[in-house]
Amino acid sequence: MTTAKWTWIRICRLLLSILLVFSSVAAETPSGYKREICEFRKGRLMQPTSSYRSRLLAMREQMLIRATLEGPEIYGYILPSTDEHLNHEVAARDQRLHYLSGYTGNRAVAAVTQGGAAIWLENRYAQQADGELDCDWEIYLVGGNVSMAQWFGHQLHMNKRIGADPQLVPHHLWITWERELTEKFLKLIKINSNLVDMIWEAERPDPPKDHVIQVQTRDFAGEKWEDKVNELRRRLVHLGCDAMIVTSLTEIAYLLNIRGTDIPYTPVVKSFAIVSRDDIFFYVDHGKISLGIDLHLRTDCYNENCVKIKEYKQIWSDIRTYVQIWKRVLVPAPCVQEPGASEAIYSAVPAKNVVEHISPIIFMRAQKNSEEQEGMRMAHIRDGAAICEAMSNLETRFYVEQWTEEKIKYEVELWRLSQTHAKGLSLRTVVAYGEHSALPYYISSNVTNIEVSDQSLLVIESGGQYLEGTTDVSRTFIFGDPTRDMKRAYTAVLAGILHISDLIFPASVKPSGLDSVVRAKVWHEMTDYPQATGHGIGAFGSVEEPPISVAYGQNSSFHFKQGYFFSSESGFYKRDDFGVRIKNVLEVLDTGKTTTSGEHFLAFQPVTLVPYEPKLIDGSMLSSDEKRMLNRYNAKIRKQIGDELKRLGNMKAFYWMMNKTRHIREYLPEDEYRAAMGGGCHTHIHPVYVPILAVCLMIVASFIHL
Amino acid sequence: MTTAKWTWIRICRLLLSILLVFSSVAAETPSGYKREICEFRKGRLMQPTSSYRSRLLAMREQMLIRATLEGPEIYGYILPSTDEHLNHEVAARDQRLHYLSGYTGNRAVAAVTQGGAAIWLENRYAQQADGELDCDWEIYLVGGNVSMAQWFGHQLHMNKRIGADPQLVPHHLWITWERELTEKFLKLIKINSNLVDMIWEAERPDPPKDHVIQVQTRDFAGEKWEDKVNELRRRLVHLGCDAMIVTSLTEIAYLLNIRGTDIPYTPVVKSFAIVSRDDIFFYVDHGKISLGIDLHLRTDCYNENCVKIKEYKQIWSDIRTYVQIWKRVLVPAPCVQEPGASEAIYSAVPAKNVVEHISPIIFMRAQKNSEEQEGMRMAHIRDGAAICEAMSNLETRFYVEQWTEEKIKYEVELWRLSQTHAKGLSLRTVVAYGEHSALPYYISSNVTNIEVSDQSLLVIESGGQYLEGTTDVSRTFIFGDPTRDMKRAYTAVLAGILHISDLIFPASVKPSGLDSVVRAKVWHEMTDYPQATGHGIGAFGSVEEPPISVAYGQNSSFHFKQGYFFSSESGFYKRDDFGVRIKNVLEVLDTGKTTTSGEHFLAFQPVTLVPYEPKLIDGSMLSSDEKRMLNRYNAKIRKQIGDELKRLGNMKAFYWMMNKTRHIREYLPEDEYRAAMGGGCHTHIHPVYVPILAVCLMIVASFIHL
Repeated sequence: MTTAKWTWIRICRLLLSILLVFSSVAAETPSGYKREICEFRKGRLMQPTSSYRSRLLAMREQMLIRATLEGPEIYGYILPSTDEHLNHEVAARDQRLHYLSGYTGNRAVAAVTQGGAAIWLENRYAQQADGELDCDWEIYLVGGNVSMAQWFGHQLHMNKRIGADPQLVPHHLWITWERELTEKFLKLIKINSNLVDMIWEAERPDPPKDHVIQVQTRDFAGEKWEDKVNELRRRLVHLGCDAMIVTSLTEIAYLLNIRGTDIPYTPVVKSFAIVSRDDIFFYVDHGKISLGIDLHLRTDCYNENCVKIKEYKQIWSDIRTYVQIWKRVLVPAPCVQEPGASEAIYSAVPAKNVVEHISPIIFMRAQKNSEEQEGMRMAHIRDGAAICEAMSNLETRFYVEQWTEEKIKYEVELWRLSQTHAKGLSLRTVVAYGEHSALPYYISSNVTNIEVSDQSLLVIESGGQYLEGTTDVSRTFIFGDPTRDMKRAYTAVLAGILHISDLIFPASVKPSGLDSVVRAKVWHEMTDYPQATGHGIGAFGSVEEPPISVAYGQNSSFHFKQGYFFSSESGFYKRDDFGVRIKNVLEVLDTGKTTTSGEHFLAFQPVTLVPYEPKLIDGSMLSSDEKRMLNRYNAKIRKQIGDELKRLGNMKAFYWMMNKTRHIREYLPEDEYRAAMGGGCHTHIHPVYVPILAVCLMIVASFIHL
Repeated sequence: MTTAKWTWIRICRLLLSILLVFSSVAAETPSGYKREICEFRKGRLMQPTSSYRSRLLAMREQMLIRATLEGPEIYGYILPSTDEHLNHEVAARDQRLHYLSGYTGNRAVAAVTQGGAAIWLENRYAQQADGELDCDWEIYLVGGNVSMAQWFGHQLHMNKRIGADPQLVPHHLWITWERELTEKFLKLIKINSNLVDMIWEAERPDPPKDHVIQVQTRDFAGEKWEDKVNELRRRLVHLGCDAMIVTSLTEIAYLLNIRGTDIPYTPVVKSFAIVSRDDIFFYVDHGKISLGIDLHLRTDCYNENCVKIKEYKQIWSDIRTYVQIWKRVLVPAPCVQEPGASEAIYSAVPAKNVVEHISPIIFMRAQKNSEEQEGMRMAHIRDGAAICEAMSNLETRFYVEQWTEEKIKYEVELWRLSQTHAKGLSLRTVVAYGEHSALPYYISSNVTNIEVSDQSLLVIESGGQYLEGTTDVSRTFIFGDPTRDMKRAYTAVLAGILHISDLIFPASVKPSGLDSVVRAKVWHEMTDYPQATGHGIGAFGSVEEPPISVAYGQNSSFHFKQGYFFSSESGFYKRDDFGVRIKNVLEVLDTGKTTTSGEHFLAFQPVTLVPYEPKLIDGSMLSSDEKRMLNRYNAKIRKQIGDELKRLGNMKAFYWMMNKTRHIREYLPEDEYRAAMGGGCHTHIHPVYVPILAVCLMIVASFIHL
């Protein structure tokens, strides 16, 4: 190489490094969610020393100790709030992010360096996090203007190593992080022993002793697990796979007809499963196995229809062993709400053996069998009765006690949990009053709790787990008198829900294509809601189940099928004032009719049976068709929930329900129409002309007198 | 290689050839659309010898002569109905398929071998084709069970060559054909000299002499062509392209502000254009250039803002020359209705220089400027007046003359063409009566013409070209009294059209996501229509313009923007009985309001102003909101079309229009509601109980007497 060339290369390098230094100087320090209390305390030595601060310090120490254990030290560490199965709601023992930072919400990722600590979370959790986190922590919003990679890029010099536990991160997310960090000249490293576990030690809750596995009997499951496994094997053969690693807890629960109590809100057992042509391996803590389970899972035999139970941790060595035999192993890919396999699972299988594909169990499970369908309907009757009991009780006590969001939440949860076959809640109950109801993703918590009065709207979002099925319902209430705006908003939301409940459509229409039916009236008020309109729901399983998602921005290629259940929600948010939300679970029916091209017409049927608030319905905004749908729905509630409430002997709730579901007039008389249009007379007279008219009348009158 | 290996290979080959022979024997002879007249004539020596038969023979001769001209002979030839610019409606001189076969429809492809001749066309043209084609021709449906490749596979032995003119086939379709034929072990060959042209010769119509190019003035175009070219260049730079080959005639017409009469229904000039950084080349027959055009296109100067006019055929040598300079040449890719560049254009540019991308002109053109918007509205007023004139005239003469579909078509076209600034039709007028109206894609023609009476529904689909803009409208009429079913169908269709006209939605919602708003009420009657609900429309351009397509099956990623115009159609087909169709053109408006995330709310406004049929509207099926929309629309027609009809002095049409647009009652009185529900009394008494009740009443009455 000539000297001239060398000189050029050196100049280029110099320029590049100047550019890099300059750009890092020029880049502004990223600033996230404004933490007022921390701003106030800054420089005033007022920061209280908490246990969380010492945990953060212990964590930083661990990051350096890494140097002696697994290669060089790491300068950054990423900690998501999920567990090994990528659940959002996790067991006490797996609440690592909570232990480290004090944050009790979910769907968050923390990043720690020697000099900083930050957390990325969704907007709805920001206020709560601000109340819970030490001032050591910065708060950033997911999808905001500072990404985690940018933050690390600002905190660390080039070529530094950042660690994360690959068991807690979905494969596809790991790939994204790796790419983003590489762009900032940083390296993402797999740290197999979780750093929080190392500092947690004695304080960490023990695995609960009494969490034995329960069998979901044929009466409720509707199908033998052996048949499900055979169907899964058939589908695996079709995909050319020798085995599948089942990582989703709800899929394992569905597949083996078992339920557990390991995770809040979802009745699952923390475990892995592997289904191959010849074996069914079930990796779980042996302490959870009772004799009944042994019999149920047929652990005493040795053919391909017997389950082999192994210790939870043994899956890692088993994968390594068996990939010698299995040529193609299905590793779950992400599917709508389902994140797919973790990076640890994905990378445990040699790349040449991996078949990344959406789990076939998702589609088997989504189409409920007739027992599950019946169960879902039954669960919603029990659940509807619970809401009627809670609300009727609340209404009688409303003016004699003082109520807060948290107190109402407690009441609603109590009534729900006292129903027959109730097995817990299916989601964190949200009770949002007044301006809180106007926050699309409000999470009620002790930090944000406010008093509830009769002036504004009260939104309750909740759901329950029953042996028969899972429920998910939102309703909006008012104890005083609503304003015209509130009625307008409520009726717009209700109309969308009525429309989708009554919809008939060809099976090839995508769920996202039906979103406009629900939203049209809300859009017409020049407002929109950020949530998805709908998602699938499990049968005594997860409240949010793939593959269905009704959201106009989403482009999924999955269609509705007969026997699917999904939720349908609509909302209206008037900032700093009030909000409305209504959510029902719907069932997909086959009408038996087809289009000329032979495609089936599907229809929906609401299974949620909870009264709407008649005080909030503006009858003049609804067509007689819509009012007929409403009356039909109310008649169904009177029949089915009425029977259940009578069975429960709660006549207070019964009369409350009867009062809320009164038949409404389907026609629209002239006077009512005129009143709604805002005028009582047939001709509209502009106010300017009123005095002139009055004068004219007086003149005419005086003439008559003459 | 060992002898054992050789033997194996020989056995395998043998097995393969046996398999192939066996499969071709086993495959059934493909059979297409059943041609009854041909079945009847078969073997009876009754086949009339037509000129079309001799043309087919001449064509087959040409296929063999190919042997001496361009390599070995071809055994099959493919002839599409399109021209060099892939138009569906083509000039007389380009109706090659018509010349060869006698078929006058469009969207068809013919395939000819020495032993057979077949044509693939859409279902809607099947009846017409059956009437027009010789019995030499088989008819197959596009998307049916026999593809062209299968047909060829059955007709020809392996490794035979099939020719086609690459100028008449879109690149992406050529690729598909090539792949499908390869699977049948056949070869697709480019034959540059069109075989039909070779046999056509003397009979072929000359290029018309009087088709001079017209300038679309600033008053109507709203923008100088120089500005459009500069905007295009800006976009090409953004795409990193040095030049673009403009192949679409409507794009050239838009870009250079010119119009012509070369193609039926679309006011364009048969030409090519190339825009590079330094040049604008316009390839057209010099005979079409008048002095005005020379001045308009600035052909007398030599900078980058002057057009260089060249002979039409010169584009081929120019492309070959200039790709020496241009590194990256944009070749139009398909975009919704637009097929993109032909195989000839695509392969003229060396593969390394091709940038296949959607033409940027599509998006420039779709967003109409304010003059074009005003023009579109004006064109629709003229067009609305034309329909009122035609229909009022028809109504007065209806019972005194005998009417057929073709006669009504003639009347409607006449009235439209006599409007101010009328420049022709924008599509083949469809007049469909009775069971014809129940055929989704019925094309009225002499072959299918029937008498029109007052018993059933009459659907008229039509549109016009005006200097100001293009129109496209469908309406359904009845001269007698409609049945309850007809009213129900019409009102369901109308409701969808009213809903989309009144829709407000966030700009990120995809057109396909709004389809369910239009179709919901039609679906509810367990019926669907196969057409797309909507497509973009040009301003004195094509009646079907990309990028908008409203159809739930389609997955396009283009969104509505302020200033877009598109058609919105809904239909209802009751097989063998009647059909309903309503189509309006809508304009996209920006409401100025945004969502909380800053996204704009868009709204629609109907620009088509043609009365609906009040006799066919069932008021009890519409909400007061919907009736209010209808009244607002009718008031707009009374004002705008009323003014136009008064200006035209046609008071008969004026009163007809006033009668059709009467204000309807927006409320729903009890008696009207009960009548619509099919019962006159408040309590429903099952008919079984009526005699019992009567007896009871008699007993009571007798007691009173006592």
